[in-house]
Amino acid sequence: MEEVKKEESKKVAKITRVAIVGYGNLGKGVESALQAREEFELVKIFSNRSGLKSPFGTEFELTKHIENYAKKIDILFLCGGSYSDIEKIGPKTIKLFNTVDSFDTHAKLEKYITSLDKMAKKSLKVAVSAGGWDPGLMSMMRLIFNSIAPTHTPANAFWGAGVSQGHSDALRRIKGVKNAIQYTIPNASVVKKCASKFDYVPKSTEKHFRECYVVLEEGADANAIKEQIINMPNYFLGYKTTVKFITEDKLRKMQEKMYHKGYVVKNFKCSDKFATKVSFNLDLESNPYFTAEIMVMLGDAVKKLSSEKKYGAYSVFDLPLSYLTTVDRSTLLKTML
Amino acid sequence: MEEVKKEESKKVAKITRVAIVGYGNLGKGVESALQAREEFELVKIFSNRSGLKSPFGTEFELTKHIENYAKKIDILFLCGGSYSDIEKIGPKTIKLFNTVDSFDTHAKLEKYITSLDKMAKKSLKVAVSAGGWDPGLMSMMRLIFNSIAPTHTPANAFWGAGVSQGHSDALRRIKGVKNAIQYTIPNASVVKKCASKFDYVPKSTEKHFRECYVVLEEGADANAIKEQIINMPNYFLGYKTTVKFITEDKLRKMQEKMYHKGYVVKNFKCSDKFATKVSFNLDLESNPYFTAEIMVMLGDAVKKLSSEKKYGAYSVFDLPLSYLTTVDRSTLLKTML
Repeated sequence: MEEVKKEESKKVAKITRVAIVGYGNLGKGVESALQAREEFELVKIFSNRSGLKSPFGTEFELTKHIENYAKKIDILFLCGGSYSDIEKIGPKTIKLFNTVDSFDTHAKLEKYITSLDKMAKKSLKVAVSAGGWDPGLMSMMRLIFNSIAPTHTPANAFWGAGVSQGHSDALRRIKGVKNAIQYTIPNASVVKKCASKFDYVPKSTEKHFRECYVVLEEGADANAIKEQIINMPNYFLGYKTTVKFITEDKLRKMQEKMYHKGYVVKNFKCSDKFATKVSFNLDLESNPYFTAEIMVMLGDAVKKLSSEKKYGAYSVFDLPLSYLTTVDRSTLLKTML
Repeated sequence: MEEVKKEESKKVAKITRVAIVGYGNLGKGVESALQAREEFELVKIFSNRSGLKSPFGTEFELTKHIENYAKKIDILFLCGGSYSDIEKIGPKTIKLFNTVDSFDTHAKLEKYITSLDKMAKKSLKVAVSAGGWDPGLMSMMRLIFNSIAPTHTPANAFWGAGVSQGHSDALRRIKGVKNAIQYTIPNASVVKKCASKFDYVPKSTEKHFRECYVVLEEGADANAIKEQIINMPNYFLGYKTTVKFITEDKLRKMQEKMYHKGYVVKNFKCSDKFATKVSFNLDLESNPYFTAEIMVMLGDAVKKLSSEKKYGAYSVFDLPLSYLTTVDRSTLLKTML
């Protein structure tokens, strides 16, 4: 009887207690992905909304009460819906919890991770940040491919066909636009050139087409808005951009589909002589549910780093690959190397 | 003037002095890959053969004199031609040098790296072992793919069309076989199933076809040798194997072509609902020259680990990706994440 108790307490000690902050598509994806993982116990879902229900029976709590759970939760998966959410909640939660986020504003990543690192070291916590499919998995491929024969042209990345959240947001910020969605479509002829020519460098504006679907506010000037879109610097200017005006009903149906694709390719000649191509393909029916899988994978890294007291904020570039799995090193070397 | 001198000495101190051990195709590939790398100075090529010449003017030295260079060389690239070479020279050289090898006998890797690790820690050196395209790059993909949604069926790997050195060696060990080459051909219908069905698990013997080209010793019994080949356990038994007898001239021409391919795919449903496929493709005109590029990339990791006094033997699973490049972390986060 004593022995059984010891066994049980050992098992309990090994399980990591986790929670989700934010219950949009991403939060739901993390909840679902966690169901298959024995090493994690999902304790709570935090949301600003009350009255939510989970298909898995997970308990909810209002996010404003999160500090009460400091000693009851080991890792938080930050699944805030918008960019600003993560920037606000990340620095707040790292004081009390280890965290995983998929913050994806590329221009802000370095600054965010650097500042989060200082905070995490101070509070003796671990954060893995920017861990989704891009930034995240695609970033890993870019770094690996670019590190091979690094004096050659860097790898080319393509996205889509799929929805760009950033570009959709940019459309929605235009006065007179009620709602909008933007599909990023890779330019097939440029993809082909990158995959067939050595060290080919396309212009960034020719790599993708941009398809905008816009619902107008009543009385808005369609032509003026179209002009504003196609001339928006950084987002649409220079790109082959189409703008279609549709009904809100149609748009809502489009927003339900969450597929996306990614492609990274590097095509060069080893020693300027031997044709060499490395490529990575990603094909997703659900962008948020796959992002969720990557976040949960990084939860394993947070668990390991925290148990080794290696406090700080990490990107996917800072992690040995063996930290991504619960499989022990000896088995990895025997079965996967 | 003083300032210029300081600048120069700083630059010199940063350059890593490297050497190559073994001057077959792999050694030649490493020599060639190093030409594009400013951070490495190729000091010597060690070989058991005398009278060798290099197209790049690199100096040669007999391998038996290698110990004289302990203080003049920082990293050795071990490019011994056969499996037993690495097992012998690895433990010998780690006493005096940091090393990179592409040891590829999968069954022995864990034991080899574990024993090399002890030696490296004792001699305050760093080794990165098993760093080629497989084991190496393909292993990294297996580990990453398997860490995503790990309760699903592991990723499937396919090799070829290309020469398997291990299988060719196995053929050459048969009495009556003068010389031989074996091509591993992926079974297109199984590749298609793995790429289109979720969690599909093929039998390992149905994943590849094996094409053997054999030069017989005079008077050898072709039928008996063919029987021996197709019934060889682990190598050919159970596989769809063809055996063709050819002339030595023809075989030599085949041996000049060093192309190979690799494919890793994982096809599953996120949360048992959303179709998800990740895949990696490798297409090589020269197996040894690409292996050489990977080894030189790992030279950057050895350089970093050694400068941080993180002594020991590493596999590609033990390295943060940022160690594969000379690009500093801040730039990585800004440009590749």
